[in-house]
Amino acid sequence: MMVRVVEVSPRDGLQNESEVLPTASKIELIRRCVEAGARRVEAVSFVRADRVPQMADAEAVMAEVPRRSDVSYIGLVLNRRGLDRALAAGVDEVNCVVVATETFSRRNQGASVDTMVQAWSDIAAAAHAAGRRASVTVAAAFGCPFEGDVAPSTVGELVARLAEGEPDEIALADTIGVGVPAQVRHLVAAAGAAAPGVPLRLHLHDTRNTAIANALAAVEAGVSVLDASVGGIGGCPFAPAATGNVATEDLVYALHRSGHQTGLDPRAVIETAAWIGDRLGKASLPGALGRAGWFPDEPA
Amino acid sequence: MMVRVVEVSPRDGLQNESEVLPTASKIELIRRCVEAGARRVEAVSFVRADRVPQMADAEAVMAEVPRRSDVSYIGLVLNRRGLDRALAAGVDEVNCVVVATETFSRRNQGASVDTMVQAWSDIAAAAHAAGRRASVTVAAAFGCPFEGDVAPSTVGELVARLAEGEPDEIALADTIGVGVPAQVRHLVAAAGAAAPGVPLRLHLHDTRNTAIANALAAVEAGVSVLDASVGGIGGCPFAPAATGNVATEDLVYALHRSGHQTGLDPRAVIETAAWIGDRLGKASLPGALGRAGWFPDEPA
Repeated sequence: MMVRVVEVSPRDGLQNESEVLPTASKIELIRRCVEAGARRVEAVSFVRADRVPQMADAEAVMAEVPRRSDVSYIGLVLNRRGLDRALAAGVDEVNCVVVATETFSRRNQGASVDTMVQAWSDIAAAAHAAGRRASVTVAAAFGCPFEGDVAPSTVGELVARLAEGEPDEIALADTIGVGVPAQVRHLVAAAGAAAPGVPLRLHLHDTRNTAIANALAAVEAGVSVLDASVGGIGGCPFAPAATGNVATEDLVYALHRSGHQTGLDPRAVIETAAWIGDRLGKASLPGALGRAGWFPDEPA
Repeated sequence: MMVRVVEVSPRDGLQNESEVLPTASKIELIRRCVEAGARRVEAVSFVRADRVPQMADAEAVMAEVPRRSDVSYIGLVLNRRGLDRALAAGVDEVNCVVVATETFSRRNQGASVDTMVQAWSDIAAAAHAAGRRASVTVAAAFGCPFEGDVAPSTVGELVARLAEGEPDEIALADTIGVGVPAQVRHLVAAAGAAAPGVPLRLHLHDTRNTAIANALAAVEAGVSVLDASVGGIGGCPFAPAATGNVATEDLVYALHRSGHQTGLDPRAVIETAAWIGDRLGKASLPGALGRAGWFPDEPA
């Protein structure tokens, strides 16, 4: 089947790298991802520059990204102020994040889950009124660094509340990379029951080497949209030496070799991963394909 | 279900590391693996010391491994001379390797597939006559570095020929780490049909980040024995910068979190990985769990 990969390296990737790239390099990364076949790109976030200096130039990035009718740019927003900036900057979609657990929500976003559910509703209504798509990510849906295991029923209940904002899509995020395929199946079923008819997206981290297994399980469960980051850049703030976002090239390999299509050119994705690795001054990246090469020799 | 992990770091791991460890360190690695719960260990190979200097001290290693009635040591052998050494050294099981493709067989073993099928038959008969278990691995079953894709029917036909030696177990090896779960299902079905009643083992490499997905697919397909290497040591001779054997700790995480049991103590496995990494002078190992930590905090 056709699986759509949302390229999140420009936002979730770069935001979690200590090296802050110049604006021109961010635009070049986005341009290369689009050239490689990416049709949805999480390009920037509109958050406080003092909290996330990596994203301080969001407007400047959006002003120069290649505009194409078949490419949609996503901006992450957490409040009305961010939404206004995102609309002014011309994003095609906004994505809000609500955390599944109270402790993580307060520590990461400085707000309760209830507050963030309300923020999402306001954002969604305003974005839709402005004619933009609005989606929401359930962070820590597979497990929380503070509270541990998260029950699928907890995620289902939160998804039902988020569905009241009429999201164009709901993403389930394995923010700290702890999930396994059985959990993917449970969560997809719980979210599907809680928000019937709303498309699901999965945001997987490879922190414990389970992201590819989880991605394939998600696709088997009917999910056709997956987030990924070229090279696997981004890391994990809760485990500094560990891997974060699943690498786009690894995901493409697993999907293509399993008979699925992504519309991405594997060679161009691998080249983009190497390019961004150089920009970030990294001797090696988490993505396996850049080190191992495609199989068979000619990517398909 | 109970999944048995065969610890292959002492042989397949160390054999593919450039650093040659002293005999005492090899014995210590085996002792630590057994302490962590390993009950089958691929301990040594009995091959030509000029070809594989890492295994030149096989007899000395076997003379000092902890002998327990519940622990079985496997020695790799490729010919009658190796078998005689293995029997004299007191291995509990011998394992032979036959490559699925002609080019790889001739390059890697200096012999045709037909020659190796015959060698396996001779080894199996002699091992069984000596009261030892004898198993055989189909190398490059998921793909060949020289011939590319390998059809499941090719593997099935080879498995049928190998089954004539009455193997106690047949292993399917993704020697260069190219497989995906759909392929696991096809190969397990083909091998099962070709050798009804013979237990299957899977030997997976994580070279392209698919080993955990493949392992879980194998278990779902009924395979209950999997090879792994602490830390993921061993690398891949065909892609020097890449990952080789799936890391025992990553496999244990995925299995335990999926509700399976292995009998292995995750903490002890992670500690053993760190220990062998130090011995090999490696700043980091392919295994993800050593960098990320278990989840939740207390391993189960």
